[in-house]
Amino acid sequence: MDQQKKVSIAVVRRLPRYYRYLSDLLKMDVTRISSKELSLRMGTTASQIRQDLNCFGGFGQQGYGYNVEYLYNEIAKILGVSQQFKFIIIGAGNMGRALANYNNFVSRGFQLSGIFDVNPQIIGTTIKGFKVMDQDNLETFLKENPIDIAMLTVPSHQTAILAERVAKLGVKGLWNFSPMDLKLEADVVVENVHLSDSLMVLVINLI
Amino acid sequence: MDQQKKVSIAVVRRLPRYYRYLSDLLKMDVTRISSKELSLRMGTTASQIRQDLNCFGGFGQQGYGYNVEYLYNEIAKILGVSQQFKFIIIGAGNMGRALANYNNFVSRGFQLSGIFDVNPQIIGTTIKGFKVMDQDNLETFLKENPIDIAMLTVPSHQTAILAERVAKLGVKGLWNFSPMDLKLEADVVVENVHLSDSLMVLVINLI
Repeated sequence: MDQQKKVSIAVVRRLPRYYRYLSDLLKMDVTRISSKELSLRMGTTASQIRQDLNCFGGFGQQGYGYNVEYLYNEIAKILGVSQQFKFIIIGAGNMGRALANYNNFVSRGFQLSGIFDVNPQIIGTTIKGFKVMDQDNLETFLKENPIDIAMLTVPSHQTAILAERVAKLGVKGLWNFSPMDLKLEADVVVENVHLSDSLMVLVINLI
Repeated sequence: MDQQKKVSIAVVRRLPRYYRYLSDLLKMDVTRISSKELSLRMGTTASQIRQDLNCFGGFGQQGYGYNVEYLYNEIAKILGVSQQFKFIIIGAGNMGRALANYNNFVSRGFQLSGIFDVNPQIIGTTIKGFKVMDQDNLETFLKENPIDIAMLTVPSHQTAILAERVAKLGVKGLWNFSPMDLKLEADVVVENVHLSDSLMVLVINLI
């Protein structure tokens, strides 16, 4: 998407949050909101909001505030919310199960298509209506079922090899939950979730 | 901590990542590193690194690079890594279980002290050596066991009430996994983990 290539990754990372707040406003039948009001709700500054949203070109009208629905729809387009994405989960431990049961994904257009594991005691069990498949069958499965995203919830030492493997099989994005930054040769988009990092940010504010 | 109050929240959020990279460098016996080399490893710019680390005052020596161990220790202090924090998990579903089993927390000074749930079928079962306690016993437990952090992995509609409840009982920080920004009357530090937001950032780079 050309439009977003021009904006900084910092702004992009803030868009899902705008999207959540705008969604709440729509539910409350708020049709217009000023950057000032939005900033109070979001706990940020009005100038930050104007800067962020200006990157995407002219949503705001001075003196009138933002049209909530228009802004919501524009951000939804940028975020690809109107699109459907198929994903698989590799690693059916607690984190994999938690992700499989996370209802919020469905409402944002993410469709679970399969769950894989290596453990014979887990393979064949059912999670969220899906029979857990043997990880050895990834190749066969992915050839028959094109998948956009693989969520990797496997131990750290298995992650890099597995990531290269699914990237070669046409998976376009990897969502990595192991505590390492995944960097790959393959042409694949990676988003690393670092839970410990988030916990440390909490702690900095405690001490 | 006075020192970190002066730096922007954006910098603070990047420190755990520096900490991870420096930890890896130490394991590889790297004693000095320039901002340029570090930037190549971290996939950021050298000027970003210099700006970020200058906020904390004079770690770098021009022409000599950073002393890895010194920088690691200083960031560890800022991050409170040398301190011990006691935490409880409220909500023993899949996400709660995943957090209980996340070994990385222990190595960063986080000590699990109890797990709570409301479900009679889960109360009394054992997770990571802890008998899951009845959420009704939170008051009694927290009076006897001062706790720094509560990880909240309960359904969204229960989160706010529960958060106010434990904040009143002396818990200082809340790590919230429900898909909402938790804002409270109580004097408590909140860090919200928004998994869907992270997934949306991945998607933006896919489309």
